[in-house]
Amino acid sequence: MNTTLTPAALRQRIRSGEFTANTSGYCPGFVQCNMTILPKAWAGEFLQFCQLNPRPCPVLGMAEAGSPAIPSLAADLDVRTDIPRYRVFEEGRFRAEVTDIRELWQDDFVTFMLGCSFSFEEALQADGLEIRNVTEKRNVPMYRTHIDCTPAGRFRGQMVVSMRPFRAADAIRAIQICTRFPAVHGAPVHLGDPAQIGIAALDQPDYGEAVTVREGEIPLFWACGVTPQVAIEQARPPICITHSPGCMLVTDIPNSRLAVM
Amino acid sequence: MNTTLTPAALRQRIRSGEFTANTSGYCPGFVQCNMTILPKAWAGEFLQFCQLNPRPCPVLGMAEAGSPAIPSLAADLDVRTDIPRYRVFEEGRFRAEVTDIRELWQDDFVTFMLGCSFSFEEALQADGLEIRNVTEKRNVPMYRTHIDCTPAGRFRGQMVVSMRPFRAADAIRAIQICTRFPAVHGAPVHLGDPAQIGIAALDQPDYGEAVTVREGEIPLFWACGVTPQVAIEQARPPICITHSPGCMLVTDIPNSRLAVM
Repeated sequence: MNTTLTPAALRQRIRSGEFTANTSGYCPGFVQCNMTILPKAWAGEFLQFCQLNPRPCPVLGMAEAGSPAIPSLAADLDVRTDIPRYRVFEEGRFRAEVTDIRELWQDDFVTFMLGCSFSFEEALQADGLEIRNVTEKRNVPMYRTHIDCTPAGRFRGQMVVSMRPFRAADAIRAIQICTRFPAVHGAPVHLGDPAQIGIAALDQPDYGEAVTVREGEIPLFWACGVTPQVAIEQARPPICITHSPGCMLVTDIPNSRLAVM
Repeated sequence: MNTTLTPAALRQRIRSGEFTANTSGYCPGFVQCNMTILPKAWAGEFLQFCQLNPRPCPVLGMAEAGSPAIPSLAADLDVRTDIPRYRVFEEGRFRAEVTDIRELWQDDFVTFMLGCSFSFEEALQADGLEIRNVTEKRNVPMYRTHIDCTPAGRFRGQMVVSMRPFRAADAIRAIQICTRFPAVHGAPVHLGDPAQIGIAALDQPDYGEAVTVREGEIPLFWACGVTPQVAIEQARPPICITHSPGCMLVTDIPNSRLAVM
């Protein structure tokens, strides 16, 4: 399929069931979002968790309780149909992957959209930097750390980070570029020795796939949008629905609009 | 002496001969400058060298040929008397250290003022970061690298860098802060392995004094204002006058005015 469809055209094909794949590389230039849906009784604490931990959990938009619309992100958005694949969790445990959640919808569902690393990866590539997971066509490697998130009610847990290796001068440039994008995880939270943040082995990620780290390269670690998933596993809400990894909401917002300067 | 004198009051005491010491820590909040004076026949090439190598050689001001004034930096400035100690070089070789250069002055002298790391060190400290050379009351360690500067006429040479160690999170913060100050060397040019830029041993600096690098800390390397001195050694102009290391011109410009954002 043509990757340069407009976001509205891609969402239409997702809604019709024609497109059920990974959205990576589609609609370049537009913000893609991580999604979390929770019952209203859990939504307040989750929002507080996000606000206390903005680097892993940057909130780009949320819906009114019971509403599938977030017009600030996409005029015609229906969160029940416009994501290629959803994951359903009960009591914090994965139950099913589906391509439509209209039958699961509840009047008390509150939808959260969080920033995603696709936005900053695009900014880094536009500057000429090589993103190893893109080059090697792998899911970015992600690791549980020993960095505690600030808890909020029942939501708590340790930060998950994604890792991308760079030569030193490119690492400095990546920090500069990502600093401009606090709404999509911002600057790295760590660089260098993985053991300092509780990572035992770079070649054994907890999520995603390992990538090559070449001699002389420095690993950079970014706060990752998988962090809320860990907090949800701990909180064990009766139901929670998320996007399936890599199958994101594609919004109408240009990535450049997230730059703070 | 009171370190919180106004810049004008400190310059007055330097001019009168009362103050002949290091200016580090004096007039906090105000820009201090590295100085280079060259005959006009050499000044054009030197300016080009600075413009081609803005990270080690950021030009903050220069005087008309024969003039000891740079009103854009300090209203009453006389570069012949307002620096505590000067160094005189002939054919690129050190000849003498003096506290006044009125007797050496030539009608064809062109004075250059370059940004200095004191400005960004102050910004880092204001953010709560520890600067090791400040804590240990040492001259910052500086090293010759194998990074070639872009040559201009007779001026050429390899970049000199200064080094300050930080924990990873502070290293990231230091890169963010220094990025705001391109006129005083800007972001680091390297981090991590010193050998990658041709430095054999951190405990054997080529200039200044070694500082403690603790377990788990990462060395950050900034382009350094000693770089033009190396280029002058290579160019061998008949005469060149600089400030003595640490004995800087104190200007009336607030450090904050150098921030680009």
